Amino acid sequence: MDPDSHFHHKHVIISGGLGFIGSNLAIRLVRAGAKVTLVDSLIPEYGGNLWNIEPVKEQVQVNISDVRDDHSMRYLIRGKDYFFNLAGQTSHLDSMENPFNDLEINVKAQLSILETCRKYNPDIKIIFASTRQIYGVPQYLPVDEGHPLVPVDVNGINKLSGEMYHILYNRIYNIRSSVLRLTNTYGPRMRIKDAKQTFLGIWIRNLLENNDITIYGDGSQLRDYNFIDDVIDAFLLVASIETGDSPVYNLGNHIPFTLKETAEIMVQQFGAGNYSFKTFPTFLKKIDIGDYYSNYRKISEKTGWLPKVDFQDGIKETLEFFRENYHHYI
Amino acid sequence: MDPDSHFHHKHVIISGGLGFIGSNLAIRLVRAGAKVTLVDSLIPEYGGNLWNIEPVKEQVQVNISDVRDDHSMRYLIRGKDYFFNLAGQTSHLDSMENPFNDLEINVKAQLSILETCRKYNPDIKIIFASTRQIYGVPQYLPVDEGHPLVPVDVNGINKLSGEMYHILYNRIYNIRSSVLRLTNTYGPRMRIKDAKQTFLGIWIRNLLENNDITIYGDGSQLRDYNFIDDVIDAFLLVASIETGDSPVYNLGNHIPFTLKETAEIMVQQFGAGNYSFKTFPTFLKKIDIGDYYSNYRKISEKTGWLPKVDFQDGIKETLEFFRENYHHYI
Repeated sequence: MDPDSHFHHKHVIISGGLGFIGSNLAIRLVRAGAKVTLVDSLIPEYGGNLWNIEPVKEQVQVNISDVRDDHSMRYLIRGKDYFFNLAGQTSHLDSMENPFNDLEINVKAQLSILETCRKYNPDIKIIFASTRQIYGVPQYLPVDEGHPLVPVDVNGINKLSGEMYHILYNRIYNIRSSVLRLTNTYGPRMRIKDAKQTFLGIWIRNLLENNDITIYGDGSQLRDYNFIDDVIDAFLLVASIETGDSPVYNLGNHIPFTLKETAEIMVQQFGAGNYSFKTFPTFLKKIDIGDYYSNYRKISEKTGWLPKVDFQDGIKETLEFFRENYHHYI
Repeated sequence: MDPDSHFHHKHVIISGGLGFIGSNLAIRLVRAGAKVTLVDSLIPEYGGNLWNIEPVKEQVQVNISDVRDDHSMRYLIRGKDYFFNLAGQTSHLDSMENPFNDLEINVKAQLSILETCRKYNPDIKIIFASTRQIYGVPQYLPVDEGHPLVPVDVNGINKLSGEMYHILYNRIYNIRSSVLRLTNTYGPRMRIKDAKQTFLGIWIRNLLENNDITIYGDGSQLRDYNFIDDVIDAFLLVASIETGDSPVYNLGNHIPFTLKETAEIMVQQFGAGNYSFKTFPTFLKKIDIGDYYSNYRKISEKTGWLPKVDFQDGIKETLEFFRENYHHYI
């Protein structure tokens, strides 16, 4: 299935559109012939970055506003066929330090978006970016969609509400909404200033700045990674199929790596650098989920999606991108 | 275990303290020798009613304010030993019609209460009133605490967030919080104006006003009921044990009744009245959970709690109360 053809001449809105996933999706959709509107608040702590859309800046409509701004959203969603709902607060630590802000963005704004769609564009199709964080500490591996939901931080609780609203509005009001539960996504245009999106961001920055990568703990913790192109594939595939009654899908990878292996691969692909270990900071340990990797069989069976890009290749491409574009991301 | 002795001279705050459960709890705690502060917004659509505390009105401190009012809560929680956190929006239908209001009360105010406790009274012990609504349509019966969480309305999603915050603050910040997931609670002082707390309320009103009880559907749907005195027992028992790592407990009853049986018993105990059937209104059907009754083994094993009052006896006492006090509740 070539999902791209599906979007030719379609009107698409992407919230968080100047962010990591939003901008890569925008570039792909522009090339597929879609009319793309990007909404982004450009809040400095989040992933929005105008440089992200440099390749397509003349071909997209950019609207700087916040998903919490009802009035702007009401105007923007009219006439759109697809809504890729990617705006969110992603930092686990920030969600604990400022839980009300996380609540506003990840819960209240989501409810507001759904109410707006219900009232002003009930035929729109929504794809919502959720997170593996809603599962909390895995009770078994790999984690499938039926795993108990026991979030270990405010962000996990709030993202869970956000996705439950989407499922509810799908069921009750027929607002077609699908949910992708993402694991660690990496690639060109990610946030590398700090660890607010994923720890891989700050590790990339460490390499570029000739600093050691810092691994918390003994490095044995398992993580799975998805390269951005694979994640974009998943968004387009899920958007192009019937929503159905059970529209929640894990992304993930069947080849997890330990943190130590991850650091080794990154140093190897970068051709330089080092890593060192540090005791897990007490508070971070409390909201850490331990080993994690996903079972993504459901989306595979439904859409044929598979993660195609090896971590080695993907991280190499990512490091090359940031070598060239470093100053736009720091 | 006699939990009441535990509260002698203890300082207790009850949010939703003029409501159905709050006021019955207050009466019991006053008799146990506790110093009781009641917080209630007296919002007309909710269950607060000054008549509810008539028997103890000279022995409690009443503070009319909203749990959304941070400043008042900050003052009120200081120096308290126990916080029975009962304030909430309970109507499933209202949560769909005004989802933001439900979000404010059942989510944001809960987060605010927990933040206030963390900052100003971290030694307080909280007992939070949650609901069976978080399970959604039962996938098996009786429903235990490990049942999947698939809420079917905004109220269910929001109450789930509220309880997850309590569990999180217990785990991360050691704010001792326990959660009771209530099923249909009934008894003296319940709201009978309408069906906003439980359908039993409006059924009682129907009987008192010589109107038919209206049963939606064919009357075969199963429900379980807890008499208020049993529910108060559960709150006091859970408050008086160690919180532990898994402080979430179902209440419920192992003797469920069909709606038709329920109506028959109520007519019989009232000594008059009738019931009739009506097609389920389409929208209500969408947010209905079908058959439900709870597995409450966990709280039984932990505290010895059992529902002691038969529905026949409990509903008789309830109807007698409302015969005498009707005009205070309409």
